[in-house]
Amino acid sequence: MSDRFDSGAGFHWPVRVYWEDTDAGGVVYYANYLNFMERARSEWLRAKGFEQDVLRDEQGVVFVVRRVEVDYLSPARFNDALDVSVSLHHLGQARLTVDQTITRGETRLIAARVTLACIDAALFKPAKIPATILQALEHAT
Amino acid sequence: MSDRFDSGAGFHWPVRVYWEDTDAGGVVYYANYLNFMERARSEWLRAKGFEQDVLRDEQGVVFVVRRVEVDYLSPARFNDALDVSVSLHHLGQARLTVDQTITRGETRLIAARVTLACIDAALFKPAKIPATILQALEHAT
Amino acid sequence: MSDRFDSGAGFHWPVRVYWEDTDAGGVVYYANYLNFMERARSEWLRAKGFEQDVLRDEQGVVFVVRRVEVDYLSPARFNDALDVSVSLHHLGQARLTVDQTITRGETRLIAARVTLACIDAALFKPAKIPATILQALEHAT
Amino acid sequence: MSDRFDSGAGFHWPVRVYWEDTDAGGVVYYANYLNFMERARSEWLRAKGFEQDVLRDEQGVVFVVRRVEVDYLSPARFNDALDVSVSLHHLGQARLTVDQTITRGETRLIAARVTLACIDAALFKPAKIPATILQALEHAT
Repeated sequence: MSDRFDSGAGFHWPVRVYWEDTDAGGVVYYANYLNFMERARSEWLRAKGFEQDVLRDEQGVVFVVRRVEVDYLSPARFNDALDVSVSLHHLGQARLTVDQTITRGETRLIAARVTLACIDAALFKPAKIPATILQALEHAT
Repeated sequence: MSDRFDSGAGFHWPVRVYWEDTDAGGVVYYANYLNFMERARSEWLRAKGFEQDVLRDEQGVVFVVRRVEVDYLSPARFNDALDVSVSLHHLGQARLTVDQTITRGETRLIAARVTLACIDAALFKPAKIPATILQALEHAT
Repeated sequence: MSDRFDSGAGFHWPVRVYWEDTDAGGVVYYANYLNFMERARSEWLRAKGFEQDVLRDEQGVVFVVRRVEVDYLSPARFNDALDVSVSLHHLGQARLTVDQTITRGETRLIAARVTLACIDAALFKPAKIPATILQALEHAT
Repeated sequence: MSDRFDSGAGFHWPVRVYWEDTDAGGVVYYANYLNFMERARSEWLRAKGFEQDVLRDEQGVVFVVRRVEVDYLSPARFNDALDVSVSLHHLGQARLTVDQTITRGETRLIAARVTLACIDAALFKPAKIPATILQALEHAT
């Protein structure tokens, strides 16, 4: 339905849908898919060896979201077992863009593109992505 | 900074930032701005005379989000008094697109475009927007 | 049904139920009532002249929840207009206890007791409640 | 610190703290621990062979929270790996009470008691707990 973004390659993280994620329409509330996507990005960084609290405390940087585009293709429901993907689309000196999908079995529910900026945690000003992260992500699938 | 979307005209709704909205970065968590935008859309429909629970129970339709684009321009913080706007961008037979902004005083924090689809509440299939709503929105600013 | 706590006297704050607050059971998700209660406590302090961000920045203290007891008497639903109350039950040197209710019209939905501790915002250690707050709360209804 | 409730025996479920769970105080927001506790209860029922969506669709019952008591002993922070426990305290014909703890390593952060009622999913009226569930829980640790 949407080929706007990537094909779901890259890092994958499982998410279960609990009551907290749903709304009275019987499906997952639209903002809560962004929680699922953030969890997958945190686990993607962790899988590459980076803990965000350590990055903040030792290197003084955090990643913040500058832009999201989300296509809601089909709804998730209570108790669904979902797969959330993260795939690097573009890596700059101070920003990166990832493509993310959320699928249930063979069905794609969400296709998204998220732009993240590296910022100085204290000043909230743009900062260079630390070299160790740049290197780790450059060699990422 | 972003002129991608509308200028903040249209309907306005005040939102206060509470602890629940913030994260350990000291600012509003990125998904929670979507809550603020949904509240403003609900109040916009209410201001035009439409209660969504009545629409669902009497006309069998609900509006669901099909796509969001959100530019995060500047962060909101605990205790901020925000203004959320809703402005009709495009009105179709079964879909509508609104532009939304979130501002604090003169500072624009968020610029977003949201596409909503009217669906049959039971079948989750596309449905025509009820004529009374079309008429009310066509004459909206 | 529950006369365990206070009768709903004291400070009152209106809350509207939006989609974000509900779950697939068709009612407000049980944790989200705690959001409503926190909003009312923040507005209660504001009504007495205290902004929590100012308290933190100028006096170095924040209030944290040490204990909650919540009786869920009847469910709230999407679009409900609720009233949340805050009533001081006990005021100590470093702690206070408030009784809170959530009602819809004449129907009591929630009865709760919440114990708050004043802590040093940097050290996360117990701190004395500032004298100005003690004085303002002692004369509260 | 609090021996009010059970000792953390029973079913255990791991929870990671993400940005969505925290607030600008730098710790997990007080209502969000109730999300963690609900996830563990859902997984506890699943581990005993009960899927709540199947219970609702085939037996017409859901479990709702009637009362919570939560002691907040120590805060959780971003990135913490937590353990959430569920231990049956009392089993009646239409209600059950569980004790729950949240710990980080050896440190107990949360001690809670939660009363759940079995209700008719359509009528929102009390219903008997299905016999298969009673039997499965009676033999639970």
